[in-house]
Amino acid sequence: MKAVVLQPSRQVVIEDIPAPGALAPDQVRIQIRNVGICGSDVHYVNHGRIGPFVVEQPMLLGHEAAGVITEVGSQVRQLQVGDRVCMEPGVPDLSSAASRRGLYNLDPAVTFWATPPVDGCLTEEVIHPAAFTYRLPEQLSLAEGAMVEPLSIGMQAATKARIQPGDLAVVIGAGTIGIMTALAALSGGCSQVIIADLQEEKLALIRQHYPAIRTVNIRQQPLLEVVQQVSAGWGANIVLEASGSPRAFDGIVDLLCPGGCLVLVGMPPEPVAMDIVGLQSKEIRIESVFRYANQFERALALMASGRINVKPLISRVYPFAQSVEAFARAVEGIAGDVKIQIELA
Amino acid sequence: MKAVVLQPSRQVVIEDIPAPGALAPDQVRIQIRNVGICGSDVHYVNHGRIGPFVVEQPMLLGHEAAGVITEVGSQVRQLQVGDRVCMEPGVPDLSSAASRRGLYNLDPAVTFWATPPVDGCLTEEVIHPAAFTYRLPEQLSLAEGAMVEPLSIGMQAATKARIQPGDLAVVIGAGTIGIMTALAALSGGCSQVIIADLQEEKLALIRQHYPAIRTVNIRQQPLLEVVQQVSAGWGANIVLEASGSPRAFDGIVDLLCPGGCLVLVGMPPEPVAMDIVGLQSKEIRIESVFRYANQFERALALMASGRINVKPLISRVYPFAQSVEAFARAVEGIAGDVKIQIELA
Amino acid sequence: MKAVVLQPSRQVVIEDIPAPGALAPDQVRIQIRNVGICGSDVHYVNHGRIGPFVVEQPMLLGHEAAGVITEVGSQVRQLQVGDRVCMEPGVPDLSSAASRRGLYNLDPAVTFWATPPVDGCLTEEVIHPAAFTYRLPEQLSLAEGAMVEPLSIGMQAATKARIQPGDLAVVIGAGTIGIMTALAALSGGCSQVIIADLQEEKLALIRQHYPAIRTVNIRQQPLLEVVQQVSAGWGANIVLEASGSPRAFDGIVDLLCPGGCLVLVGMPPEPVAMDIVGLQSKEIRIESVFRYANQFERALALMASGRINVKPLISRVYPFAQSVEAFARAVEGIAGDVKIQIELA
Amino acid sequence: MKAVVLQPSRQVVIEDIPAPGALAPDQVRIQIRNVGICGSDVHYVNHGRIGPFVVEQPMLLGHEAAGVITEVGSQVRQLQVGDRVCMEPGVPDLSSAASRRGLYNLDPAVTFWATPPVDGCLTEEVIHPAAFTYRLPEQLSLAEGAMVEPLSIGMQAATKARIQPGDLAVVIGAGTIGIMTALAALSGGCSQVIIADLQEEKLALIRQHYPAIRTVNIRQQPLLEVVQQVSAGWGANIVLEASGSPRAFDGIVDLLCPGGCLVLVGMPPEPVAMDIVGLQSKEIRIESVFRYANQFERALALMASGRINVKPLISRVYPFAQSVEAFARAVEGIAGDVKIQIELA
Repeated sequence: MKAVVLQPSRQVVIEDIPAPGALAPDQVRIQIRNVGICGSDVHYVNHGRIGPFVVEQPMLLGHEAAGVITEVGSQVRQLQVGDRVCMEPGVPDLSSAASRRGLYNLDPAVTFWATPPVDGCLTEEVIHPAAFTYRLPEQLSLAEGAMVEPLSIGMQAATKARIQPGDLAVVIGAGTIGIMTALAALSGGCSQVIIADLQEEKLALIRQHYPAIRTVNIRQQPLLEVVQQVSAGWGANIVLEASGSPRAFDGIVDLLCPGGCLVLVGMPPEPVAMDIVGLQSKEIRIESVFRYANQFERALALMASGRINVKPLISRVYPFAQSVEAFARAVEGIAGDVKIQIELA
Repeated sequence: MKAVVLQPSRQVVIEDIPAPGALAPDQVRIQIRNVGICGSDVHYVNHGRIGPFVVEQPMLLGHEAAGVITEVGSQVRQLQVGDRVCMEPGVPDLSSAASRRGLYNLDPAVTFWATPPVDGCLTEEVIHPAAFTYRLPEQLSLAEGAMVEPLSIGMQAATKARIQPGDLAVVIGAGTIGIMTALAALSGGCSQVIIADLQEEKLALIRQHYPAIRTVNIRQQPLLEVVQQVSAGWGANIVLEASGSPRAFDGIVDLLCPGGCLVLVGMPPEPVAMDIVGLQSKEIRIESVFRYANQFERALALMASGRINVKPLISRVYPFAQSVEAFARAVEGIAGDVKIQIELA
Repeated sequence: MKAVVLQPSRQVVIEDIPAPGALAPDQVRIQIRNVGICGSDVHYVNHGRIGPFVVEQPMLLGHEAAGVITEVGSQVRQLQVGDRVCMEPGVPDLSSAASRRGLYNLDPAVTFWATPPVDGCLTEEVIHPAAFTYRLPEQLSLAEGAMVEPLSIGMQAATKARIQPGDLAVVIGAGTIGIMTALAALSGGCSQVIIADLQEEKLALIRQHYPAIRTVNIRQQPLLEVVQQVSAGWGANIVLEASGSPRAFDGIVDLLCPGGCLVLVGMPPEPVAMDIVGLQSKEIRIESVFRYANQFERALALMASGRINVKPLISRVYPFAQSVEAFARAVEGIAGDVKIQIELA
Repeated sequence: MKAVVLQPSRQVVIEDIPAPGALAPDQVRIQIRNVGICGSDVHYVNHGRIGPFVVEQPMLLGHEAAGVITEVGSQVRQLQVGDRVCMEPGVPDLSSAASRRGLYNLDPAVTFWATPPVDGCLTEEVIHPAAFTYRLPEQLSLAEGAMVEPLSIGMQAATKARIQPGDLAVVIGAGTIGIMTALAALSGGCSQVIIADLQEEKLALIRQHYPAIRTVNIRQQPLLEVVQQVSAGWGANIVLEASGSPRAFDGIVDLLCPGGCLVLVGMPPEPVAMDIVGLQSKEIRIESVFRYANQFERALALMASGRINVKPLISRVYPFAQSVEAFARAVEGIAGDVKIQIELA
């Protein structure tokens, strides 16, 4: 079968690979239909590595996927052939200390699609544990199904924030994850979400499709000024840092109210200088996010009820045969592109 | 000045009373403009008492109010003459053990409008602590301002539930507080809210104005069946009991998922038989609600951003001169009436 | 090999049964050494059932056990032959919805030793998943290891209470689980724990061995009076109901402070009348306990550091050959007996 | 009356000052008896300022105090003349937004003893709000009463950590606040507390008086090694940073288990480089501490029940007439000194 493979030389190619073998009793076989290109895919293409994870041998790309079940293992009860599904790309050891505590995303033994040396899912068919495969509600398309994975990161951030109904939240960074975080925070209980970036195109797109989110171009207006005005001087209850820019941390405590919460979603490449005494003066709580646990069903529920609409975020869909072009586009990093998807026939 | 007074004989009359005196430094003077009639007002009219609180001398009615500031005390900074405001009817001793812990609603020394022997606010002018007086955002009317008090009870329920983004909630009882609770739960992070009642008129009104809330007439369909279907058998994360009917507790645990939360909002007149072993089998958490603390600003924020619209719930507005008629209507308890208000010129 | 078997006729006998077969890769083989007799074992002996669980065919008794590992599966890393261990008697489906959320005790598919039709562990050898087998710290005996299971219920109760350092707790009921709960609450952060019962022998035993726990014989002194005096009228932060007696619920809210927490540990045989309005007047939170999840390691840590000493609670130890006599003694329900154990050579 | 005054020249002198005037209805008059010297007092003596707080005019020192009530205001009910008491040095505006939420320590309008320009309490008599004055249980001395203030900081840290019963905690820094934090964490539910420092004298003192606390001299042994061994490789549940040393943050995440909590107690003089990606890889929660709220009664309860014994920490007691010598000693910063107190006749 065909697969999109990243060579150690950092070339993206379509190759023939062997089809997967037989199912274990608790697994399902899935015909892959839609796969989103993630920033991490692009990072591997650009750099051949992310931190300690190095592409040393050819690796299938892709981990944001939806498809259709073509076979179920002998013990699988909750899924059937023909079900439209999306999949968690990370599979932990369910008997690990972390998994038993409900923190399966933190299990060091987790295998995660398209993280070297583990292959991704940008191919015709995969085998996956039924426990990490989720049926799509009928009102959602397969393209939307492939958006559940990035939305789940925003959901994890919104969950960790422990939003109280009516909170004011600020999201710093209007990249894909920033938007996902803003949507999760807004549907997750905030009265208002302010999103800040310096790329006007991204902010314009948000204003167009999500008028309930307030945008701030920090090139044009100080974010603190907006937050002070909206909150009558009290500050935001929650700041979700989704830019990964060290400069976002300058004065970040000023945005927060006493007892507020800062959620670390973006991943700064270097350590960041934090004003500990400033954090203490408002007793700020900081939460940090690593992927997600138990969020796919919640994300699907919010999408199915219409409270989160991800369709405007699917910027372009390429047929599988043009996967190389899709990656070339993604590598360009065009401001108006949110999510580029590849569709298998 | 004129006031609406409940006599110990349970007659509602408009009477002349003396105007309030001078302001303390931390108080404001408010010209009352809109007052909602609450179920507790009606209960005092019907029964002359609620539990230990007995109407033994003439008492002003009304505690859901909005108005305009006409004078501010010498130390008041955050409010000005002319501000449109709503007020918390309960004023605690801020130095009490409960208040210092942020639980000022639980301070036994709280004085609460229209709770014998404390007078209500259905009159031309009141004096109130600035700390419990909240400026209305400009996009909200005074009539909406008088809805903040009942909405705050729903907010307290939604806050106590500790909703996680995407939760499924069930509200039992579609009276005014049930609807407020459903609106707070939906805007407070739920993916879906199901409200159950046996009065079709109430449910029809909800469907008409709040299509995102799913209604169940339990005369026509078992609530459990709907919950099972919506949740694919897992159960609701949260059940908010807002009917006060002992019968609502039959099988209530069956509606909940493992680890779910039951919030007690309604006030059953008698003790209710609870299946403790059933609660334990799912490790259900129960939270209980007594009025609210720190909810007015959150309610206002959700209303100002358009995430909660209470206007459809203002069923009828009577001029002050027809206050006796307004109470007569409220006493009828007509299913289609949600909130009856009295408006002062 | 020999095993202690309960017949459907409710007779306890020692019988020969086949030894277990081969190990799966993630399992260990354990030579059983100490087994405590639990109230549930006694209940099956007395009544042949607990609720829906009926002894319809011969069933091995016992689920509180410690032993020595004699063989490890091919994938087991954290345990070795010769390790002294204790075991969680409940084994869930780790891929279930509840287990993935960290609530593995609430998985409906859990199999639990000595719960019909699942056999217990009162026999020479068992096979068990390594993930639910815990190495004993060297300072603990095997007899203490067999106490971890009942202590874990107390730990679950103390954890659910969300004790804040310095809280005052009241435990109602001084049976084995009540004492375990008191020890967990005291070591878990309370400044003081009051335990109430009407059997003086139990209270005397507690005073003798655990002077930090204050005892109240409710035949001699009203519990409320003691709580009021100790808390200067504020009430207890936490009440842990461990008697299962419906009468314990009379006035239980009066014991609690505003915002306090009631933990349901005991299992009343019938529904209990709860004063909902009373709960609301203090915004009481109720938590309920079903066995435990992720508590064995915590219980072992508190025992190993000497903060919890369970040795005084091992009232009698019978050799395996006298298991029938051990059960006869347990059935007598003598007030001074806390835990009766059976020891295998 | 006499008072210990810090001159803007940084000289400590005993001076005559006017006695306070009349009581407000909610205040009490207190004869001061024991006052501890805090690191902040020493810092003002050494540097004339802490951050933005500059000693520009003569200021009374001291904020850790106990004494005896000599007069009560007309509305004071819970205290009487002759009561032995300790006092919270910070008095907030109880009607502020922060105070109403239970976060009175975060009210920007708080006045705090011995924080310029507010005078301290190292004098013969003070007037204080009854609501922030706490009666000492009879088993505690006035000297112990003056230790409640620094212990309350440790209590705030332990409370924010949200300890679960049996947690393993690490405290970095064995200064006065570090020891207080360790005592609060241990009595607050931890199975074991490890305290790390590089001054052997401090560690020896801890070992002598608090054998349940494990000490690590990081000059002799890597802290990580000890934590790994004690936790069987899982890591500590909680790390409480109480040194304020930027170097303490190197590798601090390695000490923590997945999902663990870092509490910021110490106040590093400069921003500290934090490894955000490292925090995220374990989804570490960070809590920060600013003084305390609602901790005095909890600290007193733990001291009264004997679960925390602060007596070994009172290193030296000087008579009031030798206050200048007491400060001279404190300024020396001798490793074996934990708390130096001044006693008024």
